[in-house]
Amino acid sequence: MNDTDKILLGHGSGGRMMRELIEGKLLPALTGGYARLGADDSAVLPMPVGMGGRLAITTDSYVVNPIFFPGGDIGDLAVNGTVNDLAMSGATPLYITCGLIVEEGFLISDLMRVIASMRRAADEAGVSIVAGDTKVVDRGKADRLFVNTSGVGVVPDGIDVSSSNLRPGDKIIISGSIGDHGMAVMSVREGLEFGADLVSDTAPLNFLVRDILDVCPEVHAMRDPTRGGVTSTLCEFAASSKVGILLDEKVLPVKDTVRGACELLGLDPLYVANEGKLIAVVPPDKADAVLAAMRANRYGAGSAIIGEVTDGPAGRVMIKTLIGGTRVVDMLTGEQLPRIC
Amino acid sequence: MNDTDKILLGHGSGGRMMRELIEGKLLPALTGGYARLGADDSAVLPMPVGMGGRLAITTDSYVVNPIFFPGGDIGDLAVNGTVNDLAMSGATPLYITCGLIVEEGFLISDLMRVIASMRRAADEAGVSIVAGDTKVVDRGKADRLFVNTSGVGVVPDGIDVSSSNLRPGDKIIISGSIGDHGMAVMSVREGLEFGADLVSDTAPLNFLVRDILDVCPEVHAMRDPTRGGVTSTLCEFAASSKVGILLDEKVLPVKDTVRGACELLGLDPLYVANEGKLIAVVPPDKADAVLAAMRANRYGAGSAIIGEVTDGPAGRVMIKTLIGGTRVVDMLTGEQLPRIC
Repeated sequence: MNDTDKILLGHGSGGRMMRELIEGKLLPALTGGYARLGADDSAVLPMPVGMGGRLAITTDSYVVNPIFFPGGDIGDLAVNGTVNDLAMSGATPLYITCGLIVEEGFLISDLMRVIASMRRAADEAGVSIVAGDTKVVDRGKADRLFVNTSGVGVVPDGIDVSSSNLRPGDKIIISGSIGDHGMAVMSVREGLEFGADLVSDTAPLNFLVRDILDVCPEVHAMRDPTRGGVTSTLCEFAASSKVGILLDEKVLPVKDTVRGACELLGLDPLYVANEGKLIAVVPPDKADAVLAAMRANRYGAGSAIIGEVTDGPAGRVMIKTLIGGTRVVDMLTGEQLPRIC
Repeated sequence: MNDTDKILLGHGSGGRMMRELIEGKLLPALTGGYARLGADDSAVLPMPVGMGGRLAITTDSYVVNPIFFPGGDIGDLAVNGTVNDLAMSGATPLYITCGLIVEEGFLISDLMRVIASMRRAADEAGVSIVAGDTKVVDRGKADRLFVNTSGVGVVPDGIDVSSSNLRPGDKIIISGSIGDHGMAVMSVREGLEFGADLVSDTAPLNFLVRDILDVCPEVHAMRDPTRGGVTSTLCEFAASSKVGILLDEKVLPVKDTVRGACELLGLDPLYVANEGKLIAVVPPDKADAVLAAMRANRYGAGSAIIGEVTDGPAGRVMIKTLIGGTRVVDMLTGEQLPRIC
């Protein structure tokens, strides 16, 4: 079998073809030292007891179309996404699982490209891919490749990050420009060329979170605004905490190419998915220190304070527009960008 | 929205439709008390430190076709499968995640039926479904519903179960009749009627494992023989442990309907998937005690000693046939039964 061969139903059979694919190709490319992966039904790992705290557990499936896009692919997207979901709860990410659903006929070389991308992302984030599963479905019954990543991490003692912790007066910080991932994927899908800097922002944010927690362990809430964009995250924060939020449009970081692409496609960058950005909500007296810490991290260089938490009305997110008025920003109601992650 | 509505792309958007589906329907039906599920990116849970030991982590995606079959559906199959993968490493299963990939147009009532089935299976196994994710793909880009379940458990101190632990003289025990799940699914797919007792054996085996460990904490290996059947499990055991295995065909438990269905379709029950059976490999002096403990459990009532571990040749699995000869049993090479789990 060489890398230009195609995935066949037999690669999902539980028999010899599956063992050859998994043990001969996927495992050597994927794992970071857990040699027992693949031989048994579960990975058995050290209990992270020395780290104290609680377990964080998360899961995400990735169905992004296309699977290769400017700035990344479904592989690093999946690893970074699960690393980030763990990090947003204040956890140190440790272990990641990888569940593949592959369409019959998918090129093994493309699969190996995705796997290599997962491994690079895991290495950068400092996590281990410890368990995997591969299923093959007949041609036409899936769209090339779907990836599930689940993750386990540890939340240190004393950290309590939650969407229900916002308090009036808190400052809202974004770690950089918004809408990059969604518009990078859309540009490929629509066959549009917007320029070289329209690339996905997919990135692991766990070390950025560590830098935030170092200067502000009492951070109230963190979230990576993926599907539904900044708006959905802030609407959920406001609703969960029964507070209002006021944004300032003129300080929202949006790249010119993203703004241009959004205008062309009739989209609002506030609703477009990000995959390497976080929103942190912090007490006002810590905002400057957090901002400085974030800007010192490569994934937070473009950080900005974009608004603040208000008394209410509870659940209401408002934005001060460029021309000086204010308008309500509501959660996305239908589907804006299907299969963006 | 009522249960006869269909899933739309907007249900995967990250916006209001997704929140309504998840918070209004899926969460109340799915969760066992972890109220924060859905509100934040990760579930934050007590560290199971009091239990000692190591963490077990596993993942599996389920693409079974059809999703409803005699004896179960993709929901209980997914929960039981992940519970069993944890249990086979000697772990006590604790936490399960649920990743759904839904095809646009899938009936919400069918989704709720699957979710209810997952919840019942989790309740029986005593595990909590602690994190979830829902993605929707456009019509024709998936086959109704795919489910990923990942799981976390704890392996108690002193337990070391592994496919590489087999020793010559060990007895091989199966917990009941083989081939039930695969032939139940095939009977629906082929439009065949084989009788009322051709149903999937999908079941949680964690308490059966507990009963085994109670009388034999030094059990050498355990595995649930799913894809690839009993043969694949035993071939992997023999290869990992560099031993031989000799089975006795006349004591292999196979239901008459399963045997008949296999004959009709040209299949060998030794290669057909099981979803509620386990193979335990135990030292010879503990075999009778383990067998008795297994038979006392509802999921082990049909347990039988089906063979033993030999000096070799290393990796070779042989079977003593009904007519008195022996033949080599090799691992499945191609695809026998696609999308059986």
